[in-house]
Amino acid sequence: MPPCFEQPAPNSPTAAVLVIGDEILSGRTQDTNTNTIARFLAVLGIDLKQARVVGDVQTEIVAALNALRAAHDFVFTTGGIGPTHDDITADAVAAAFGVGIGYHPGAYALLEARYPPGEFNDMRKRMARIPHGAGLVANAVSGAPGFHIGNVYVMAGVPMVMRAMLEAIAPELPHGRTVKSITVEACIPEGTIAPGLAALQKSHPDVAIGSYPFYREGAAKPFGAQLVVRGRDNEAVERVASELEDMLRQLGAAPQRVNPG
Amino acid sequence: MPPCFEQPAPNSPTAAVLVIGDEILSGRTQDTNTNTIARFLAVLGIDLKQARVVGDVQTEIVAALNALRAAHDFVFTTGGIGPTHDDITADAVAAAFGVGIGYHPGAYALLEARYPPGEFNDMRKRMARIPHGAGLVANAVSGAPGFHIGNVYVMAGVPMVMRAMLEAIAPELPHGRTVKSITVEACIPEGTIAPGLAALQKSHPDVAIGSYPFYREGAAKPFGAQLVVRGRDNEAVERVASELEDMLRQLGAAPQRVNPG
Repeated sequence: MPPCFEQPAPNSPTAAVLVIGDEILSGRTQDTNTNTIARFLAVLGIDLKQARVVGDVQTEIVAALNALRAAHDFVFTTGGIGPTHDDITADAVAAAFGVGIGYHPGAYALLEARYPPGEFNDMRKRMARIPHGAGLVANAVSGAPGFHIGNVYVMAGVPMVMRAMLEAIAPELPHGRTVKSITVEACIPEGTIAPGLAALQKSHPDVAIGSYPFYREGAAKPFGAQLVVRGRDNEAVERVASELEDMLRQLGAAPQRVNPG
Repeated sequence: MPPCFEQPAPNSPTAAVLVIGDEILSGRTQDTNTNTIARFLAVLGIDLKQARVVGDVQTEIVAALNALRAAHDFVFTTGGIGPTHDDITADAVAAAFGVGIGYHPGAYALLEARYPPGEFNDMRKRMARIPHGAGLVANAVSGAPGFHIGNVYVMAGVPMVMRAMLEAIAPELPHGRTVKSITVEACIPEGTIAPGLAALQKSHPDVAIGSYPFYREGAAKPFGAQLVVRGRDNEAVERVASELEDMLRQLGAAPQRVNPG
């Protein structure tokens, strides 16, 4: 068994992200929603355990969603809820849950009110199609709502809209014990630090220590690493970070704390 | 059945990406490797069908890798092959394939030659631990190799190193028929375009038409969409893009082709 690098508090909620869209897999679009959701959940103390990206293919959305919702407390999806023919997320979610789908009166009224007479066409009405039994997720940016059903929250793919939906969801989510994190940077090769780092991790199983090497071309000392100490016990994280800094000084490095945000 | 938005050529190779690292799921690091690999594969004509992110937990790496390698022609992993205690990808890959792991003579010699006497410590030697039966993937940036076993390519997580490894792998991969893509932008609400777009897609099942709305605060026409026509038949893609532009002009928009790179 490898050492345990994740130390969730007992009963800490878990989550998964499912990004839906051909544009991510074709390389046309760089997904940023996963990172936004990851930071959002970290603040709430919810453990993001896995993320997946699938294309606009119903069978693949259904398979991924059913696997993820069975294994996690919450699933957050992004993408595929607009008005166009390639927006098939609502249908796929209904299929995954084995429920019907149709116009949601609240969503329909909300959307109808946004358009001038005659412009609420059949494609726009598609955005009011919500799986039976789902509740709406408010969209402060562009009106068209997301929805939630069971433990699944279905959000838009446009990052600005997705962020607004996350804010709308936040009050409904339980809060775990927040993870504290301290990042220490040192311009010293990762392989030189590694033995001491392994010993430090071994003697402090209550925190997770990650090491992320970097290269800075042209720098006097081009090889270095960011070392991240994470845990749910603030004092333990601070204590281990201090020990880490002592170790780095003994190796001749001048460690600095950095803000990863 | 939903319409088929992906039209791979017969026997077009398929691929999946597996990103390994707590730093992605904690939100500390924005993954860019998936996008780099997606663009790399698009040029080769290999269909990227799915991407996953898992943490530094052996059971989760093994489960994801075994699911992905069974369902795709190729799997590309990134992350977890450095010298530190949290780098457990090589062990996880060996476990997934049910093979042993040990020092690879070639990798060992290559790494040993890079360090001054006495600095090739036990942690650095970890980078020479390769699953039995695997071949090496060259690393032009920092020396420590990746490896390939079966249909799985195991690469570093540092983007600069990962890109160098991709270049080293490229000559070994088969080439599918390359996807051509034309992107047309129009400052007109997506919901106004949607009916015509659906009809266009229906009459041209040999291409995939995607619609990606945007909002530009402060612009005279703040609502618009990028419309992407993709396919493996260059003439068909060009023909549908022209029809799309005609449709947009009839709706009063002034479509423009854009370079998505």
